[in-house]
Amino acid sequence: MQSVRRVAREAALSAGNILLEGYSREIKISYKGTIDLVTEIDWASEKEIVRLIRSRFPEHSILGEEGGVLAGPGTERWIIDPLDGTTNYTHHFPFFCISIGFESEGEVLYGLVFDPLRQQIFEAVKEEGAMLNERRISVSRSPRLSQSLLVTGFSSSKPEDPERDNLPFFNQLSRKVQGIRRTGSAALDLCYVAMGAVDGFWEIGLAPWDTAAGSLIVREAGGRTSDRKNARHELTSPMIVASNGIIHDEIIDVLNSVSGL
Amino acid sequence: MQSVRRVAREAALSAGNILLEGYSREIKISYKGTIDLVTEIDWASEKEIVRLIRSRFPEHSILGEEGGVLAGPGTERWIIDPLDGTTNYTHHFPFFCISIGFESEGEVLYGLVFDPLRQQIFEAVKEEGAMLNERRISVSRSPRLSQSLLVTGFSSSKPEDPERDNLPFFNQLSRKVQGIRRTGSAALDLCYVAMGAVDGFWEIGLAPWDTAAGSLIVREAGGRTSDRKNARHELTSPMIVASNGIIHDEIIDVLNSVSGL
Repeated sequence: MQSVRRVAREAALSAGNILLEGYSREIKISYKGTIDLVTEIDWASEKEIVRLIRSRFPEHSILGEEGGVLAGPGTERWIIDPLDGTTNYTHHFPFFCISIGFESEGEVLYGLVFDPLRQQIFEAVKEEGAMLNERRISVSRSPRLSQSLLVTGFSSSKPEDPERDNLPFFNQLSRKVQGIRRTGSAALDLCYVAMGAVDGFWEIGLAPWDTAAGSLIVREAGGRTSDRKNARHELTSPMIVASNGIIHDEIIDVLNSVSGL
Repeated sequence: MQSVRRVAREAALSAGNILLEGYSREIKISYKGTIDLVTEIDWASEKEIVRLIRSRFPEHSILGEEGGVLAGPGTERWIIDPLDGTTNYTHHFPFFCISIGFESEGEVLYGLVFDPLRQQIFEAVKEEGAMLNERRISVSRSPRLSQSLLVTGFSSSKPEDPERDNLPFFNQLSRKVQGIRRTGSAALDLCYVAMGAVDGFWEIGLAPWDTAAGSLIVREAGGRTSDRKNARHELTSPMIVASNGIIHDEIIDVLNSVSGL
């Protein structure tokens, strides 16, 4: 796992520099649908990450947000988001990151999320704990939902799809908690759960590259992840719920009290 | 105005150090209602700001979130929030600031918002423009609501009061824009409008100390502020709307399309 970790860190730092450089100049924006902005920076970041992974592990598969699937012969797969929080990035709202997950035989064994603006590297190795810039982190100890701060996001693609409508859940939960934040970067949201800056997170319609690294980081920080029914969260689950563990069942109960879905 | 500015900056930086120091250690939390957490740090920050203002301007009035009103004989008044984003602060969600406004004869002439984590000082002098760390800032140029990123907040006091219920407005606007963020600090939200990181902001039920400095900073950055009816925003208006100016009428139209209020 050490060589995986070394390549992931090198790729994240190098791609992070691409993001930072682009952040300080005008960006040529192209559109993918009406909302999901994609920039040339996004592509450059992914290209750099893929290049570094391929040069060291040419036989591994790569699933990237921009480039789609590069299939290799084995069961090792990298799952990458070269710019999570693209809408923020294009508007210069200071919340975005790079997410890199590594799985083997369908199980995520390593995850890294890099916030280049704050130079924060969140990392987890399965069964070895979670770290922020090499120091151990752990989830919060908030004992009750009513004392909790949550974070959520709203799907940027197909917001009209009723199966992806987060508003009923948001409306219900917002009356039960101290506050709900929205940063616009799901991978960072998961890391904020892991380091205890928020007590829980949920979102609908995320892709594997949004959650692969972050969900491992939550679990390795002592937290819990699940789908809406409190079953194991898979990378393809329609909803992810992540929390400090203590308030998890309370969140699930509120989510399942929402009728009509 | 130079001496006002000098005192405000000195007070903000000194109080900022109090906030940062407290942020890195365990905090003894007291409760004000069920949601609005107040910490000893909050009080220490206000005490320090008041001390520095009083030592230089003993005749000025001071309106502070924690200390209430200190009345002076003249029409000069300082309006201060020693810790905007207290819920974030207690949870270690990295969004909070100090807000200091100065008014004379009922008009805000100077405003300062300090984000100690990012060491960002937002400032405006009436009719002299807005600055971030001494460099001019200006609002975004997003031409349409559909291409805009907004930010909002939900009142932490009396969330059950239907006149303070932001959900109907949130639900309506969330379908018209690229995204809506929630940071949990209204004063910083206004500064993010001023520097173009978001295109617009609205919130219900804010207090004078939340908006006094930030709303001047928005206007001096070329933006617009108003109440819900598009009339001049007063510090006691039930709702504030702030934007880059271009999308302002579009926001107002959507807010006023919400029925039942």
